[in-house]
Amino acid sequence: MAHIALPEGLPGITGGFAFRPEIAKPMRELANILLYEPGSLTPGERELIATYVSSRNDCYFCQTSHGAAAAAHLGDNEVVKQVKTDFQNAPVSPKLKALLAIAGKVQRGGKNVTSEDVDSAHSQGATDLEIHDTVLIAAAFSMYNRYVDGLGTWQPHDESMYAEMGKHLAEHGYLTPSRKN
Amino acid sequence: MAHIALPEGLPGITGGFAFRPEIAKPMRELANILLYEPGSLTPGERELIATYVSSRNDCYFCQTSHGAAAAAHLGDNEVVKQVKTDFQNAPVSPKLKALLAIAGKVQRGGKNVTSEDVDSAHSQGATDLEIHDTVLIAAAFSMYNRYVDGLGTWQPHDESMYAEMGKHLAEHGYLTPSRKN
Repeated sequence: MAHIALPEGLPGITGGFAFRPEIAKPMRELANILLYEPGSLTPGERELIATYVSSRNDCYFCQTSHGAAAAAHLGDNEVVKQVKTDFQNAPVSPKLKALLAIAGKVQRGGKNVTSEDVDSAHSQGATDLEIHDTVLIAAAFSMYNRYVDGLGTWQPHDESMYAEMGKHLAEHGYLTPSRKN
Repeated sequence: MAHIALPEGLPGITGGFAFRPEIAKPMRELANILLYEPGSLTPGERELIATYVSSRNDCYFCQTSHGAAAAAHLGDNEVVKQVKTDFQNAPVSPKLKALLAIAGKVQRGGKNVTSEDVDSAHSQGATDLEIHDTVLIAAAFSMYNRYVDGLGTWQPHDESMYAEMGKHLAEHGYLTPSRKN
């Protein structure tokens, strides 16, 4: 049961958003810019970063829904699993590996990022904008994960629900909620 | 020096906002709702929660600017220092102490919040909305702090600058940047 009286039957962050619609708007807009709007990192790559950070924060709802969104973008669920367990050996680009390393540092705390981490990302072809957005995706999921778990939201274990949610997010982004998210 | 080429002379988060104005909009709107718009917790109390979390995350820019905003709202700088070092013995209400305890749990990770923490806040008169907003302020500053430090932003040690910034934030909120924030 959630820690406060959230509306029934809404999984994860959608319960908080229904309880406090005012904050849902900027939080949805931020996710939409970072994960869905056109950028030089593909939406699939950005969803992998969000999934990785959510996995490190042990947030079931976020890692499963964004993992499903990444899988829908990439047409591949195996790479999502591999990024979560051992990204250095996952079939992703050296640039994305360098960015995932930065995201992992930010997940533990912003001060962990070193100039060597950033040099490494630059040397793999990452732009300043891509590094900026990686830092902010990791920071933002440090928020979303804490929000979802700190409220004790309902997080059903229903693979088909997350697959449907991921497909909706991959197709429509974060501004237009589906029935479930 | 910042990790990426942020505009010169803009302290802390304002450097990131100038580099990527698209994300500044929802991030400013979220802060404005959580910290400045009317609510049953006073803006001073909410800035104390933001300051406490930023202090626990060791983010100099955030704890100093929001500490200055709290001091401007409350007309008292001592209480800000006491909340950062030992909030249980600070001159704040039992309700705010119970909410600061929840914020401290969220800062470490959302799953740390227990039903006992929430019962304790309820028993001191906290509403579900106040508990929700406390969780989200703590979660949001887990983002802002990581963003500011993860980019390696310029964080000058200039007390008068932060006092001016805090006064501006207390008076005008987060939607209309001053020259410096």
